[in-house]
Amino acid sequence: MKLDPTKMKDWEIAAEAEKHMKTVYQLAEELGLEQEELLPYGHYVAKIDYKKVLERLKDRPNGKYIDVTAITPTPLGEGKSTTSIGLVEGLGKRKQNVIGALRQPSGGPTMNIKGSAAGGGLAQIIPLDKFSLGLTGDINAIMNAHNLAMVALTARMQHEFNYDDETLAKRGLKRLDIDPKRVEMGWVIDFCAQALRHIVIGLGGKKDGYPMESKFWIAVASEVMAILAVARDLKDFRERIGKIVIAFDRSGKPITTEDLEVAGAMCAWMVDAINPNMIQTIEGQPVLIHAGPFANIAIGQSSIIADYVGLKLADYVVTESGFAADIGYEKFWNIKCRLSGLTPDCVVVVATIRALKCHGGAPIPLPGRPIPKEYFEENLEWVEKGCENLLHCVNIVKKSGVTPVVCINAFYTDSKAEIELVKKICEEHGIRAAVSEHWLKGGEGALELADAVMDACNEPTNFRFLYELDEPVKDRIEKIAKEVYGADGVIYLPDAEAKIKLIEADEELRRMPICMVKTHLSLSDNPALKGVPKGWQLRVRDVLIYRGSGFIVPVAGDISLMPGTGSDPAYRRIDVDVETGKVKGLF
Amino acid sequence: MKLDPTKMKDWEIAAEAEKHMKTVYQLAEELGLEQEELLPYGHYVAKIDYKKVLERLKDRPNGKYIDVTAITPTPLGEGKSTTSIGLVEGLGKRKQNVIGALRQPSGGPTMNIKGSAAGGGLAQIIPLDKFSLGLTGDINAIMNAHNLAMVALTARMQHEFNYDDETLAKRGLKRLDIDPKRVEMGWVIDFCAQALRHIVIGLGGKKDGYPMESKFWIAVASEVMAILAVARDLKDFRERIGKIVIAFDRSGKPITTEDLEVAGAMCAWMVDAINPNMIQTIEGQPVLIHAGPFANIAIGQSSIIADYVGLKLADYVVTESGFAADIGYEKFWNIKCRLSGLTPDCVVVVATIRALKCHGGAPIPLPGRPIPKEYFEENLEWVEKGCENLLHCVNIVKKSGVTPVVCINAFYTDSKAEIELVKKICEEHGIRAAVSEHWLKGGEGALELADAVMDACNEPTNFRFLYELDEPVKDRIEKIAKEVYGADGVIYLPDAEAKIKLIEADEELRRMPICMVKTHLSLSDNPALKGVPKGWQLRVRDVLIYRGSGFIVPVAGDISLMPGTGSDPAYRRIDVDVETGKVKGLF
Repeated sequence: MKLDPTKMKDWEIAAEAEKHMKTVYQLAEELGLEQEELLPYGHYVAKIDYKKVLERLKDRPNGKYIDVTAITPTPLGEGKSTTSIGLVEGLGKRKQNVIGALRQPSGGPTMNIKGSAAGGGLAQIIPLDKFSLGLTGDINAIMNAHNLAMVALTARMQHEFNYDDETLAKRGLKRLDIDPKRVEMGWVIDFCAQALRHIVIGLGGKKDGYPMESKFWIAVASEVMAILAVARDLKDFRERIGKIVIAFDRSGKPITTEDLEVAGAMCAWMVDAINPNMIQTIEGQPVLIHAGPFANIAIGQSSIIADYVGLKLADYVVTESGFAADIGYEKFWNIKCRLSGLTPDCVVVVATIRALKCHGGAPIPLPGRPIPKEYFEENLEWVEKGCENLLHCVNIVKKSGVTPVVCINAFYTDSKAEIELVKKICEEHGIRAAVSEHWLKGGEGALELADAVMDACNEPTNFRFLYELDEPVKDRIEKIAKEVYGADGVIYLPDAEAKIKLIEADEELRRMPICMVKTHLSLSDNPALKGVPKGWQLRVRDVLIYRGSGFIVPVAGDISLMPGTGSDPAYRRIDVDVETGKVKGLF
Repeated sequence: MKLDPTKMKDWEIAAEAEKHMKTVYQLAEELGLEQEELLPYGHYVAKIDYKKVLERLKDRPNGKYIDVTAITPTPLGEGKSTTSIGLVEGLGKRKQNVIGALRQPSGGPTMNIKGSAAGGGLAQIIPLDKFSLGLTGDINAIMNAHNLAMVALTARMQHEFNYDDETLAKRGLKRLDIDPKRVEMGWVIDFCAQALRHIVIGLGGKKDGYPMESKFWIAVASEVMAILAVARDLKDFRERIGKIVIAFDRSGKPITTEDLEVAGAMCAWMVDAINPNMIQTIEGQPVLIHAGPFANIAIGQSSIIADYVGLKLADYVVTESGFAADIGYEKFWNIKCRLSGLTPDCVVVVATIRALKCHGGAPIPLPGRPIPKEYFEENLEWVEKGCENLLHCVNIVKKSGVTPVVCINAFYTDSKAEIELVKKICEEHGIRAAVSEHWLKGGEGALELADAVMDACNEPTNFRFLYELDEPVKDRIEKIAKEVYGADGVIYLPDAEAKIKLIEADEELRRMPICMVKTHLSLSDNPALKGVPKGWQLRVRDVLIYRGSGFIVPVAGDISLMPGTGSDPAYRRIDVDVETGKVKGLF
């Protein structure tokens, strides 16, 4: 059956492709995995025993490492995931040994308005239902590990409230004296449950908990998820889990999971989750799916462990940074690469004609609303003006010493002249650019991109960090603001000043990398400003501290750790074919 | 290494046995499973595609079907799970083709005081860590399916509060007018989180939900779990899911998951969970683990689907009913067998000398406290008196027309004379009895039991239900109270009377089986009364209705759907060996 994305829904294409997909045993054979290293979860999903693979192949040189980022997107997105998958398919078509390494989607958006994150058109990963509905259960494991910590916290507060020191001592417990007004952590659930954003818990009698305000976050915003993305191995993971600060005591001292004697049990729930998952593109290339941390308070990238595994198994590994180059790639560059010790060989900057027009002056398109008619009419002026944002984003990549490749993610309604204009501008600036039609044509449509990427990977790189960890925190924030975002400087509000003082006084904290919270819809901290905003200062309101994941998080944008479910969510159209067990209606 | 349960902890025995355990591929080969039917989850856990197996083997006659129940237990339990596992091992030692079919434990008790439910001593199932920590994720799937319904409910209430009918209509929604004071369902989490028992949600602004009281239950108390246990196939499962009543509207009409358009998506999260899981005993016999519904508001038995599969694959299937014969076996008999169409060939009634002494007059032992010294001294009088409870429980089994076998679950401190006395009393009443030392000796210690069970299975049975579904609800409750519990009659409080009237007026409800809520610590509704209480009436306070699982639930005992975490819970001692990934400290 011919797969035509202009006529078929994404899930229909996936269902058709799944009829001929490879088993994980075939994928493993193609990758040269030993039987012990493959942990199948059914016939089409597997985990890979990262430790065994890395031990066996420790002397094999790494493959080429490619990160996919984007220009400042419109609220509709630039198709980074779709491009990443298309590039994997394109390299596959060129007979290269390639693996994708992508994030696992949250159940919240999948059941809500946004839908799954399996790509689209002929650039998709399958099996779609397994990918969209929890895969091998890593997010559930995170949910359990995280909530167990909250159980330990609230049970402890209750018992300390009900018992005197002597009774506590009989059970080997010393009063922690947790401050109910300074519980930092919420509970987690992996849906958009706005009703649980602000709650009061512990009502009822003495045995029904300790009454206090509390909150739920979406599971992927858990610090446990952030840690899964950055841990180098199980040992590193276990140590970081124990450092998570859940609350403060009444004297202001942090209370960690280790203080609550729950860190070991949390880790026990995560033992399987530390192994990356493997599925495939609809053209049969393997894709590792592992971790999916929030892109604002965390790094928004798939795991370091998956990248380690991929680079040993394949000649090309394609991964992706959440959000745009200023915030997503900056974190890849200065956090993920620093923690992993890996350096990319090439960075793809994805741009759509739609987003370029938006940066050039077209009205901003909004999700769930019809796309303004301006986007269906050729407008070279807007496109040219919009390329300023593209050039800025390419320059961010150049600052890291890595070779950029611009990918024009073509939509079949784009005009030829618009696409040619972007190519011309890139050429004038000496930037490799490729047009890619993976959505419409799969790997066949991504050959130009694949070739450009292979060329770029053959160029020498000169990777360097934007800052060193021993630089003062303010200097580092300023470097990001000026050199990456293009701000004139940084304004710190009092809360932020106080926190920075605290951080600078702590030997461990002061050496942690910076993980910025800022909108991805503008290079500036104001989502309404398109193009390349000039003459502005970055306002840092607060600085959060994540000891477990090991980030200093300056807050220069909104943080929402629990999205809301809309009035017309995806779950209304999802059902199961009870004869075949196939899920219908995912998108 | 010699495994000695008097010197080793359960988890140490499990760890030792796991070094030599079979892979699921070996187990599958021994069972004659086709490759397509085995869905491995790693090398030592698998799911079995129930549909493929049942289709291929539809003409094969079923194996023998054995249910394990117990006398009225002490609060420490009678070792039913351990005996079930021991019997599987014993039948295995006799070279029989045997499968166990047991419940999956909840994370709550495992992390709290009770510990896991993997048996003990040399009668255990492995891998212990996978079994104890979520296995293939079925409970997580239940948690997600269930909580998605709560998201749908609360989001809908919020949108109906914020928008007028016209705005709702634009999104294809008609006002459901849900009564915030009549939301029946809580959220679920699979831990003992007493702090979430009574909560207030939806605080904050217009976009932060609808403010109301709410609650959390432990995940295994979810009606989705109850449905997983009784569903005959995916079609049946899907239909039942859609009938779950979440709330009532202001006119008193029930609001179902189907009304909220979320039933299909809930089912989508459960597609894999419907397949039973397979692990093994420490002696290498396969054990199916599937479903683990609460024994009070639900049936407290493993799934019908697992029994179907087991009976096609093996000559003997050993399953277990939660709680004692009066409440656990009664539900097996009149609910599970009715819904499955299966009938048991033999029922094992487990008794410990400890419980018999307790029924005879010894002080009641309590969990977490030292066992009273009386239990370490021979007392034939107490044992003899206690046998009244045993004989009552055996008679319950006889009423169902099935052959009972008494299993004296021997502890190595029991006196020989005590054990002989119980055997003699059974003999005098014409009851097959066997002493089993599976805890100390594994299958070798369970040969007498295995032989007795094989003998019993060769006897003809005359299975009959206690009641028919077209009998009036009150008549049915009375039959259970009088003929099973030994009550003189039933007293209905006003709430119960009102509900029964409502049920009798509804064509679908009035034909649903009865699923009683009553303490398992006494044959009566008063947990303090041991032996065989006489001259009492069963007090039915209320009658709950579970349309999805399809039960009428008369409430004659306490219902706690969210246990509490104690001050010295198991998680304090659980950790991970970061070199091997093995979990330490589970019990």
